Amino acid sequence: MSGAKEQAAGSGRGGVRQVDVAALVEQAREGRPRAVARLISLVEGASPQLREVMAALAPLTGGAYVVGLTGSPGVGKSTSTSALVTAYRRAGRRVGVLAVDPSSPFSGGALLGDRVRMSEHASDPGVYIRSMATRGHLGGLAWAAPQAIRVLDAAGCDVVLVETVGVGQSEVEIAAQADTSVVLLAPGMGDGIQAAKAGILEIGDVYVVNKADRDGADATARELNHMLGLGESRAPGAWRPPIVKTVAARSEGTDELLAALDKHRAWMDEHGVLAERRRARAAKEIETIALTDLRARIAAPASATSLTALADQVTQGTLDPYTAADTLLTDLTTAP
Amino acid sequence: MSGAKEQAAGSGRGGVRQVDVAALVEQAREGRPRAVARLISLVEGASPQLREVMAALAPLTGGAYVVGLTGSPGVGKSTSTSALVTAYRRAGRRVGVLAVDPSSPFSGGALLGDRVRMSEHASDPGVYIRSMATRGHLGGLAWAAPQAIRVLDAAGCDVVLVETVGVGQSEVEIAAQADTSVVLLAPGMGDGIQAAKAGILEIGDVYVVNKADRDGADATARELNHMLGLGESRAPGAWRPPIVKTVAARSEGTDELLAALDKHRAWMDEHGVLAERRRARAAKEIETIALTDLRARIAAPASATSLTALADQVTQGTLDPYTAADTLLTDLTTAP
Repeated sequence: MSGAKEQAAGSGRGGVRQVDVAALVEQAREGRPRAVARLISLVEGASPQLREVMAALAPLTGGAYVVGLTGSPGVGKSTSTSALVTAYRRAGRRVGVLAVDPSSPFSGGALLGDRVRMSEHASDPGVYIRSMATRGHLGGLAWAAPQAIRVLDAAGCDVVLVETVGVGQSEVEIAAQADTSVVLLAPGMGDGIQAAKAGILEIGDVYVVNKADRDGADATARELNHMLGLGESRAPGAWRPPIVKTVAARSEGTDELLAALDKHRAWMDEHGVLAERRRARAAKEIETIALTDLRARIAAPASATSLTALADQVTQGTLDPYTAADTLLTDLTTAP
Repeated sequence: MSGAKEQAAGSGRGGVRQVDVAALVEQAREGRPRAVARLISLVEGASPQLREVMAALAPLTGGAYVVGLTGSPGVGKSTSTSALVTAYRRAGRRVGVLAVDPSSPFSGGALLGDRVRMSEHASDPGVYIRSMATRGHLGGLAWAAPQAIRVLDAAGCDVVLVETVGVGQSEVEIAAQADTSVVLLAPGMGDGIQAAKAGILEIGDVYVVNKADRDGADATARELNHMLGLGESRAPGAWRPPIVKTVAARSEGTDELLAALDKHRAWMDEHGVLAERRRARAAKEIETIALTDLRARIAAPASATSLTALADQVTQGTLDPYTAADTLLTDLTTAP
């Protein structure tokens, strides 16, 4: 009875409707796009079944190579992503695209031309495209993106491309969680300074100067070369981020970009960096979940009452806020 | 021996030097500025003795009326603060000023004229002025400001004026933690839109149009009146934020501002709002401390090892991140 009621009450993503998670995961593994979409909606909407979903996905993950693409609006991220999708498809790989860029055509904010160009992949069963809202209700992207990547990974994607705008801190954080981070620039956009501001000069494993047929492309590449200190000597075995020039709209340079990605991946494997990055990514993810969880417990009705009681004592001067925080932590974690 | 070693090793604020907290608190209560400064440095620098300090302060707090002043750079916050200090001093009140505004003369970023004007209070033993760095190392201002307010409160300040720039989210949060929030605007600065963006239209209990001798002051007041919906009817007993026009540089309107603050305080007392706000403020403070504390425990060497072990399992797919987060929380809080 209760189940039927819940089912009737549930609607849309993040609703309370009970889902057969095992069946969904099985369908996602078979590459059925609706199942993948449903799973991402469940993790994005912080469904009550989120834990069940993540537990079911866990044994199926680890196979996907995650590439982050970031850069200021207008550098051609979506076009580059699309060109990469075409190249990977030609090589027979299954590709997932996670667009967390508000100006991405997937998210509905770009020019019609881009939109048409991207839609060529929409009918390809070997490509799964998903846009994410830039501001989720539980700490935004940084929270949901790793989980959406897990879904695409478990669904059998060989490569997951994560497209983000390199402006906000959370977008940079997401890009930094990729196996390989691609930072895109374009000539004449004052990107050098912007890039430095956003800290994306520190996260790039591969740099792309897109729209390389435009004036100033060489100057941009030179400036970037200088800023990255690529002329300086490095420790033996250290990774030297390559700068690839592309005209993504004409698929020029895409093979070179693909080669650079392959090279970075091989380097990471050779030096144990891939395992290290993935461990760091998982650690960050666990930490974020733990803190989000604790915040939710604090806000839950039962503990909200106890927090109010503690706050009362602090206000009255009978308790200091640190001792109150200790009590809160102990209460919340011993009686979950 | 160990104590002597620690003393020798300790230096500057936030160092490990052991401090006689009880004596410091006693001196602060007597109004000795060096003791107050030392205590604020201890809380700001996240001294190991922080907890001891907060515990010693707790019974002495609750007496100060906390007024937040916020607004965009250039609206005259420091001048207004200074005028308020003069007015409160005339009324025989002890005043604490906490300047968390990077452009404040207290923080060293403003015009010489302002600096000189403010320095008149520097030699007044009834005034305690303290600037805070805008970015602390443990989550910034939002973390340290409430504790610095506690120090000033315990030191016997009747009024604590907290001056912040109404731009960043954390500054707005601090202003929102005051008993009474004053939002300042000035004519012709396009403040209306800026204010709306920063969300400060929601936090003001009293609005000030400073530099009211300039062109456009009436228009700014009218626009503000419209944006706040002050012409609309309100529930009986609801607070209707007054708009006070001032020329702080000539102390014009300061008495009216003081009267508006007194009126708001009386209204809060009458409606139980003051107690409610302080409870909410304490609750937020406790929550922030608890989360900061948990983050520190996660980063601590012992648990960093266990987080790495959990991350390994997640990477290998033998554990999902949610179960890992549960384990982490349990480990961290049962064995502190």
